[in-house]
Amino acid sequence: MPKISHKGLQMPESPIRKLVPFAETAKKKGNKVFHLNIGQPDIKTPEVALNAVKNADITVLEYSHSAGFDSYREKLAAYYQKQGLPINKEDIIITTGGSEALIFAMGSTMDEGDEIIIPEPFYANYNGFSTQNGVKVVPVMSGIETGFALPPIADFEKLITSRTKAILICNPGNPTGYMYSKEEIQQLAALVKKHDLFLIADEVYREFAYDGFEHFSVMNEESIAENAIMIDSVSKRFSMCGARIGCIVSKNKELMTTAMKFAQARLSPPTYAQIASEAALDTPQSYFDDVITEYKERRDTLVNALNAIDGVQVAMPKGAFYCIAKLPVTNAEDFAKWLLEEYDLNGETVMVAPAAGFYSTPGVGLNEVRLAYVLNKEDLIKSAEIIKEALKVYNK
Amino acid sequence: MPKISHKGLQMPESPIRKLVPFAETAKKKGNKVFHLNIGQPDIKTPEVALNAVKNADITVLEYSHSAGFDSYREKLAAYYQKQGLPINKEDIIITTGGSEALIFAMGSTMDEGDEIIIPEPFYANYNGFSTQNGVKVVPVMSGIETGFALPPIADFEKLITSRTKAILICNPGNPTGYMYSKEEIQQLAALVKKHDLFLIADEVYREFAYDGFEHFSVMNEESIAENAIMIDSVSKRFSMCGARIGCIVSKNKELMTTAMKFAQARLSPPTYAQIASEAALDTPQSYFDDVITEYKERRDTLVNALNAIDGVQVAMPKGAFYCIAKLPVTNAEDFAKWLLEEYDLNGETVMVAPAAGFYSTPGVGLNEVRLAYVLNKEDLIKSAEIIKEALKVYNK
Ligand SMILES: Cc1ncc(COP(=O)(O)O)c(C=O)c1O
Ligand SMILES: Cc1ncc(COP(=O)(O)O)c(C=O)c1O
Repeated sequence: MPKISHKGLQMPESPIRKLVPFAETAKKKGNKVFHLNIGQPDIKTPEVALNAVKNADITVLEYSHSAGFDSYREKLAAYYQKQGLPINKEDIIITTGGSEALIFAMGSTMDEGDEIIIPEPFYANYNGFSTQNGVKVVPVMSGIETGFALPPIADFEKLITSRTKAILICNPGNPTGYMYSKEEIQQLAALVKKHDLFLIADEVYREFAYDGFEHFSVMNEESIAENAIMIDSVSKRFSMCGARIGCIVSKNKELMTTAMKFAQARLSPPTYAQIASEAALDTPQSYFDDVITEYKERRDTLVNALNAIDGVQVAMPKGAFYCIAKLPVTNAEDFAKWLLEEYDLNGETVMVAPAAGFYSTPGVGLNEVRLAYVLNKEDLIKSAEIIKEALKVYNK
Repeated sequence: MPKISHKGLQMPESPIRKLVPFAETAKKKGNKVFHLNIGQPDIKTPEVALNAVKNADITVLEYSHSAGFDSYREKLAAYYQKQGLPINKEDIIITTGGSEALIFAMGSTMDEGDEIIIPEPFYANYNGFSTQNGVKVVPVMSGIETGFALPPIADFEKLITSRTKAILICNPGNPTGYMYSKEEIQQLAALVKKHDLFLIADEVYREFAYDGFEHFSVMNEESIAENAIMIDSVSKRFSMCGARIGCIVSKNKELMTTAMKFAQARLSPPTYAQIASEAALDTPQSYFDDVITEYKERRDTLVNALNAIDGVQVAMPKGAFYCIAKLPVTNAEDFAKWLLEEYDLNGETVMVAPAAGFYSTPGVGLNEVRLAYVLNKEDLIKSAEIIKEALKVYNK
């Protein structure tokens, strides 16, 4: 038998999918499952995007330019500029989702054995992309007590070695919902400048900012124009996850030339999806206003209901649509399985993501879960009620 | 300044795009350029595929399953079975183009420093995907004298080391047009079994077979069920390169479990494109009959016209839509540039791909070019005429 690669064996399985078989058990028993475990929004995709695809006049579905449609890159740059980001067409390469942008960013900046520092808990697939690139993830701890604020710069500095090539942040954060302040970004900027590191900022949730918090992008910090790499995506912004369109953005010409070589090897990003994404830029502001209002209400609904449960602690998210909840249990994964396999409240139960999978340090976050508030308020109220009643039974 | 990765610096640039600036010069001079340099067919995409997207009833453009739509995988398995390939749904993971399938195949089977043997000349992006994975390409020479037939097995065996993990073939070949016989595949099968290697077969041109040659897939060779990995794509089959849909196929469960972890990390292949690809499976046989007839005529037109030129030698392709032509020049790249920059025949010239970029061994193929017969016959006749007249001037 031929042998699988070491890195293939090391590739992590998604912590979100781990419980899928248990959810199937729940469904087989006839129970309804509220899915708080995944970031697939129920929000409608803008019609202007869907219609553009419907009305596209295609006879030969051709490859696009490897960097994406010229017209799309131009319009996207204008979109960023309107948001106050100094981004031009040539600073953008269109990718197949933010996922591919992350793969290009890592491949362009790191070799086998190099290290990337990431505040934990973090988006679990950073592990997969790192393993794929032979890169070692070095976590720096952030905690629920500070609402997952940026760890002290001294904590980063302790971890920097000759193999450290980049720091990766997610802003606002999945799974934390934390949004870094301008000051925090500037602290990071000073750090990466001092040590000649790349600062990769995954900003795919940029528009999801609540309570008047203003998102401060790494692209706004001009002192690190050569260090900053922004990762973006249409997946959440326009609720079009299935499009598979994102981009990698940087002012660093050498970096972009390198990323372009990765882009050329895989030929082009998807054509239909680019048509949809380009048209989506014409989505009226009222769409976003409604979406943000909706998410804010969902957040308040879920977080307040959870915080009202005895022994449950949730840090109020400032952005994105996730939160981490600390539960009065020893092992949140066991509890999550039990919720699916053994429990129901009037034929209904919930699926949550054990948070340990979002930490890189073993044994951390064992009593935490991540919840995505991507369901309507009524379902979120029911979900919190189920968790409340379930905890009573479970902890007896 | 932060540093680019070594592998990023080593990523090759596409040999096909190298001449693009020269083509721009030609166009600026007002000359018409016949593009024989790229594999972007002018064939119409089946209407059944385009209409499926037009008529898709989508309100939320969601992620699909990471392995692709269940319904698509099922229908695709049935399509393969009709072609005599023993492939079931669970042997298939849908990918973002054949390109991503190649990345998954390499990542699942090879680590940094491992070696892959590839008959040269080969599809140039194999270099990029190998570099991305830290894999060393070990070329084994095939030549125009044999029409690019499989090199003797002894030549492969000489190159096998403890780091050799896989053999990669392209069948039928881009850029050669050669189609391996059943006997050749069986020789390779015995070899990979003996040495416990994977046999990765890029069969994206499988349907493009001429003169009654029957394609023999690695999936037909049941003795290597554990070794064989098939790479496929809708790009050329249905002239829908812009869809970005392909797949990785194998009976090796451990391999598929591993590839699935790569697939999960990047979440899902594009949704619109899967709708198009699934519908494309209903394309009537008459479409393919017409397409094959058209390509066969184009092939005969181009190859015969080229072979009639003094000093030009072309091996008759058995499949795909490329051929390699040996020209009476010392350096085909210089000639190709000159064609664009300096030459025109009544305001028209041609763009060809220097073949050296398809060889891994330095200094080989310097007097060869690759031509894609993706234009209509009239343009192909003109193109051959231009090359003929140009050679007279160039060689004076
Ligand atoms: C933080 C973060 N980054 C990147 C991605 C990748 O998204 P996509 O590839 O759909 O753009 C996601 C998806 O959930 C995410 O949560
Ligand atoms: C031999 C071969 N393999 C793979 C590919 C990748 O194609 P795609 O990613 O569009 O499926 C191509 C494209 O030209 C090719 O010629």
